[in-house]
Amino acid sequence: MSNSRKNMALGVFLLGAGHHAAAWRHQEANARGNIDFRQLVQLAQTAERGKLDMVFIADALAVGRSLSSIEHNVGGALEPFSLLSALAAVTEQIGLVATSSTTYNEPFHTARKLATLDHISDGRSGWNIVTTGTEAEAHNFGRETNLAHELRYERAGEFVKVVKELWDSWEDTALLADKASGIYADLDKVREIDYKSDWFTVKGPLDVPRPPQGYPVLIQAGSSPAGQAFAASIAEVVFTAQQTIEEAKHFYQSVKGQLASFGRAEHGLLIMPGISPILGATEQEAREKQQELDALVLPHVAVAQLSGLLNFNLASYDLDGPLPSIPLPEASTSGVISRIKMLVSLAEKEELTIRQLSQRVIGARGHKTFVGTAVQLADLMEEWFRQGACDGFNLMPPLLPSGLDEFVDEVVPELQKRGLFRTQYSGTTLRDHLGLSSPYPAYRT
Amino acid sequence: MSNSRKNMALGVFLLGAGHHAAAWRHQEANARGNIDFRQLVQLAQTAERGKLDMVFIADALAVGRSLSSIEHNVGGALEPFSLLSALAAVTEQIGLVATSSTTYNEPFHTARKLATLDHISDGRSGWNIVTTGTEAEAHNFGRETNLAHELRYERAGEFVKVVKELWDSWEDTALLADKASGIYADLDKVREIDYKSDWFTVKGPLDVPRPPQGYPVLIQAGSSPAGQAFAASIAEVVFTAQQTIEEAKHFYQSVKGQLASFGRAEHGLLIMPGISPILGATEQEAREKQQELDALVLPHVAVAQLSGLLNFNLASYDLDGPLPSIPLPEASTSGVISRIKMLVSLAEKEELTIRQLSQRVIGARGHKTFVGTAVQLADLMEEWFRQGACDGFNLMPPLLPSGLDEFVDEVVPELQKRGLFRTQYSGTTLRDHLGLSSPYPAYRT
Repeated sequence: MSNSRKNMALGVFLLGAGHHAAAWRHQEANARGNIDFRQLVQLAQTAERGKLDMVFIADALAVGRSLSSIEHNVGGALEPFSLLSALAAVTEQIGLVATSSTTYNEPFHTARKLATLDHISDGRSGWNIVTTGTEAEAHNFGRETNLAHELRYERAGEFVKVVKELWDSWEDTALLADKASGIYADLDKVREIDYKSDWFTVKGPLDVPRPPQGYPVLIQAGSSPAGQAFAASIAEVVFTAQQTIEEAKHFYQSVKGQLASFGRAEHGLLIMPGISPILGATEQEAREKQQELDALVLPHVAVAQLSGLLNFNLASYDLDGPLPSIPLPEASTSGVISRIKMLVSLAEKEELTIRQLSQRVIGARGHKTFVGTAVQLADLMEEWFRQGACDGFNLMPPLLPSGLDEFVDEVVPELQKRGLFRTQYSGTTLRDHLGLSSPYPAYRT
Repeated sequence: MSNSRKNMALGVFLLGAGHHAAAWRHQEANARGNIDFRQLVQLAQTAERGKLDMVFIADALAVGRSLSSIEHNVGGALEPFSLLSALAAVTEQIGLVATSSTTYNEPFHTARKLATLDHISDGRSGWNIVTTGTEAEAHNFGRETNLAHELRYERAGEFVKVVKELWDSWEDTALLADKASGIYADLDKVREIDYKSDWFTVKGPLDVPRPPQGYPVLIQAGSSPAGQAFAASIAEVVFTAQQTIEEAKHFYQSVKGQLASFGRAEHGLLIMPGISPILGATEQEAREKQQELDALVLPHVAVAQLSGLLNFNLASYDLDGPLPSIPLPEASTSGVISRIKMLVSLAEKEELTIRQLSQRVIGARGHKTFVGTAVQLADLMEEWFRQGACDGFNLMPPLLPSGLDEFVDEVVPELQKRGLFRTQYSGTTLRDHLGLSSPYPAYRT
């Protein structure tokens, strides 16, 4: 299966000092980069210089899995909609994607924040839809426990429906602002939605006129069967963690294969695995960079982080022994379960000790790592893209800002030379960049 | 009673085309200014050029009192936190004040959005605390009716308490980010708040480190007895609508007089009435500008707007007859009741017809209007300030951008000449501008 897309899509996941767990300790790092707006502006402007499709901000509604996790790991971050709106003011073309939970928000608030970001950015917004997976987040919103997995997806489906109806509550041409007649809004084209269900009762209309893109781009990262089905039904971009080209092809075909049953075309959804590259002028230089970063991680911190990813405390096990049998948590998200299975399988396949596995996953938290030269990275990306393993990549540079500078200065030109990536933006909106059509809702004029 | 403050405080209430109901129809106006980010940037930068203390954004969680109200009036706006964060990126010094409801939000979300705005702006944020007064807003959040007045204030008091505890959950020096030791956060200085009450259960800590200002500046606009008491207990700035210097002095003394009972000093709270000035080189020119704006209002629109302000439908009454007896709504906010009393009293005192009253209030929605020269306006502002009727003003220019340009170019220099207003910013934060001290919470290092 080859990819019919000419250009691959490229996003970058912005995270203060970088994605490696110890990046903030590196001599080049801005250790407070995660809350330093100037650092984040610099990263977004570099990504725009590289003509990337979008910058992406993750989100959690708690400092970490537990308070103790921030003793050695970066914790605390800026609220995504505020941050991305601010980045919109100092960028011109790049897409801006905010993560936001459907479990601990109201659809009216979410619809208006996304519509606002879309207006401020002239149509460059996207929404990474998450259902929120941790108990720590539940505890900040008056709940003893998180909603069960299936209820979260049920709520998420309805939540997205309400949000779309709110965006549709103003037709494209509803805002007349006609000075001569004195008619501001055409009341035939603004409607109450009167949504009523067990989950939500929302009258509408939205208090923000229709977003320039119609709908901001909808993004999801479901990987369990339920998650894949949800993504196939509503998402236009899927973020995913894939270790090998074979696994990536399998996932790609699985998700794309479900689109037809929702009446959707294959090109209406892009699949973008994460990739965490460490680049060097030579392979040897890249490996040295990796070792330099790994040396900054305290072993007990690495194992604690692996324990978090596995939802299983490894503190009492021999660091240099094998991974014990890891139970799958019952009431967790599909994402967590898929991640645990992937890590267990990785340890078995390569016969890794706990120490080795923890070192392996620290840099990319389950995403594909790469260590080598820019040309080698371009080779890998080209292979994955041309062989139908993905439609592009979500970059997670281990160390920032250098990891993004190197990518933009060395890898992007190589991809451009091969005809795999744009040399300039051909449109103005995130939908334009990604080659996604505008939505055609019932109410559209 | 004279004012001990050397400088008056000045804010400007940003609203697309201006505060006059028909401003958007004026030939100079950007009719879509309310959702045009570039227009709002221009206004904020002009205010900063004038060394104003702050820009202020109102908010409502519905398009208007009813959907039909936006047929002839501006309706729909950008979400305040997103907008102000974006403005923070393109301004350097001016304060940025967001309105946000305590009734239809969660304290955790509000605390993090304000902390984020404070980080992005390096300490220039403020929060105008509102309890939300309309049924239309209730209907967008699954409620048949709004919370009763006293319950809204009860919730608001607790809401602010939780938000402050979340800001205090990180001490000033909690974020070490110490590369050498590998300690990111000092766990002795980050705490769960474990807040539990009938209204809120929030574990914390906040997922954003402590805001640069400690707390963003707290602003309120309560005018009923309950509203004044709430303001006296927690607010650092009070926005108010006062028509005459006598009424303003009375309000000023009433609110300031309550501070001692909450253990607060008089200088810890600023009172800023709204003022809506139309300026001309001569009085005659200013009056012509006013007539030009008033001529753009359709009479039935003016009466509908007055009906909204009075919570009473005047459509069936003679436009040129007197105001009928207006009943006070039972389940409404103090703000609404105070406003109705003020309008009824104004009509009685000046023997205004419905048409005359509607024209009078259109420009400023109950706030003080002024028509004259820059020097005359400076006279009025000086009198109110020196005689203890206010600590400054919240500008509501009827027509924008010209109304703000004229104020900055003509009135600000006149106030500066008289030693009533700063010629440059002497500090960096909104607290610095307003002369407010930092909070000293229990947890502060």
